[in-house]
Amino acid sequence: MRLEDLPLRDDLRGKTPYGAPQIDVPIRLNTNENPYPPSKALVDDLAEEVRKSASTLNRYPDRDAVELRAELAGYLGHGLSGEQVWAANGSNEVLQQILQAFGGHGRTALGFEPSYSMHPIITSGTSTEWVDGTREEDFTLDPGKAVAAIEEHRPDIVFLTSPNNPTGTSLPLATIRAVLEAAPGMVVVDEAYAEFAREGTASALTLLPEFPRLIVTRTMSKAFAMAGTRVGYLAAHPVVVQALLLVRLPYHLSTLTQAAARTALRHREELLGGVAALRRERDATVEWLRGQGLTVADSDANFVLFGRFANREAVWRGLLERGVLIREVGPPQWLRVSIGTGEEMAAFRAALEGVL
Amino acid sequence: MRLEDLPLRDDLRGKTPYGAPQIDVPIRLNTNENPYPPSKALVDDLAEEVRKSASTLNRYPDRDAVELRAELAGYLGHGLSGEQVWAANGSNEVLQQILQAFGGHGRTALGFEPSYSMHPIITSGTSTEWVDGTREEDFTLDPGKAVAAIEEHRPDIVFLTSPNNPTGTSLPLATIRAVLEAAPGMVVVDEAYAEFAREGTASALTLLPEFPRLIVTRTMSKAFAMAGTRVGYLAAHPVVVQALLLVRLPYHLSTLTQAAARTALRHREELLGGVAALRRERDATVEWLRGQGLTVADSDANFVLFGRFANREAVWRGLLERGVLIREVGPPQWLRVSIGTGEEMAAFRAALEGVL
Repeated sequence: MRLEDLPLRDDLRGKTPYGAPQIDVPIRLNTNENPYPPSKALVDDLAEEVRKSASTLNRYPDRDAVELRAELAGYLGHGLSGEQVWAANGSNEVLQQILQAFGGHGRTALGFEPSYSMHPIITSGTSTEWVDGTREEDFTLDPGKAVAAIEEHRPDIVFLTSPNNPTGTSLPLATIRAVLEAAPGMVVVDEAYAEFAREGTASALTLLPEFPRLIVTRTMSKAFAMAGTRVGYLAAHPVVVQALLLVRLPYHLSTLTQAAARTALRHREELLGGVAALRRERDATVEWLRGQGLTVADSDANFVLFGRFANREAVWRGLLERGVLIREVGPPQWLRVSIGTGEEMAAFRAALEGVL
Repeated sequence: MRLEDLPLRDDLRGKTPYGAPQIDVPIRLNTNENPYPPSKALVDDLAEEVRKSASTLNRYPDRDAVELRAELAGYLGHGLSGEQVWAANGSNEVLQQILQAFGGHGRTALGFEPSYSMHPIITSGTSTEWVDGTREEDFTLDPGKAVAAIEEHRPDIVFLTSPNNPTGTSLPLATIRAVLEAAPGMVVVDEAYAEFAREGTASALTLLPEFPRLIVTRTMSKAFAMAGTRVGYLAAHPVVVQALLLVRLPYHLSTLTQAAARTALRHREELLGGVAALRRERDATVEWLRGQGLTVADSDANFVLFGRFANREAVWRGLLERGVLIREVGPPQWLRVSIGTGEEMAAFRAALEGVL
């Protein structure tokens, strides 16, 4: 039997699974992971919390993750409370729940590519139609054109990504506001990389009191260095959270995940300490790449998009041969490098010099 | 703003979130949890495994959970290998992925109610149409009528539940075979409670070599007493697993979940030791309830459905007032009690005597 012999949903036929290559190389700068492993203090605390919560593992977890949501709200600030926050297994699951509640067959989601590649994939996974509103040559979003795209397509959901992935730049608040004022449905601002933004970048969280159909998504995978724990979350109007309860799978967030996320939040000072170092390393990387005569998109994230290469695949492969794995993603002729430790970035620079 | 003011998907309007009441009472016999908490040895091992894996939590988990799937295959036996097994956050997520791959708008899923209440909910959550093929008065499934329902509705997916929840009885293999021979699409046999079945009950796993469109789902929540860990899994043809990769969210299963599940599998002897005690307690409960003149469905699970009560809500509430929480679920006039420890079942019997 082959895949074609199965009664697959028609729109899945011929598709291949999503996946960045998981290749075992010395320097992995391909999936925007945070290079800093948890400290011994955090690991000890995690093991202790797991030991405590493990004694109830025969019971289902708190179905609504009430304490975790309250603590995430406290972390976000802006006067948010737990009933305005929702959490799931990675922001991918948060996004899928949003699409299940507000998208679906006969409905449309609009995004502006290049952007996070999972947005159209999750959209299609829920049988929602994906419409691509494009960006300028320099990857910025023209507010007038964004509003025109919304007026043309009347999407049920608009995706904005700020800082954008894979290009790296944050959206001005005025652009987000223009989109919110024009959008007839829900607006999702994906802020997975918000903590890495340059000084003075405002979060869409500041717009929540004004726009009840705004959803801001976040993750603990990046700034909190907890990609392995799989915790994504969102802030929105409490009624939006109630809507998500209609589609969430009951007991979706395990006891261990809730305990680990709460432990990480208690260690936030240590974890977010790494963010400052990564920002410095990122700014130095941007500068160095520009010094090499390359074109580099402004970055508010823990990665940098650079180019342009007539044959980017050759550059990617040349780096891999030198033990450095980066990502072939986004617009043709560009490559994306995640920001690692100082040592890893030195290895990246040496490898790239070797390739060029 | 109210829920009605949001641009919710039309078929969600007026619905309420799924949820057994999570009430804090001394004796909780309402969600088919296993009453035995993990032993100290298992808790120690879990904490140690978490400590080990925590040092890589800044990295994404193994996206395909290769080792866990191989170990689950080893547990299931029947010559299965890891490529025939898939795992997710609870069998609910496994079922949702099946519906995303093989269901969706314009497609139909057939089940035989009363059965696991999440089957129609997850079906509707993926915009698949739900068709109810009914059961006999005694909750058994007539193979001829099941085949007739399949021929009438030509469903893309058929759900069988064996042992059935909330009624408790396993399906004869001949019935499953008749359904498999008639079904034009995928057939899911939900075996969440398989380990509790009475001696001589055959698993649908034995039919996998013959029927490439058969999917058997399992969970670690019940027999393994790991409801808080959220691990569900399935066994199927390797190509069916490949199909699920097209819809699964990447990195859906956290590093901690994979580590905890593998630890529990290593402790399977201890964990499954509790199953024998629960079966004995279950059989005694069935006998005792029948001794009270009540009607009781044969049970192969860790719960018992009993009745009939003109006012089941009054009985449920009377038990709750006596500190015993059971479940108002399934057919009217019936109640379901999960099997707890000997002490908990004694409290249940005393409370029910008080109520009746």
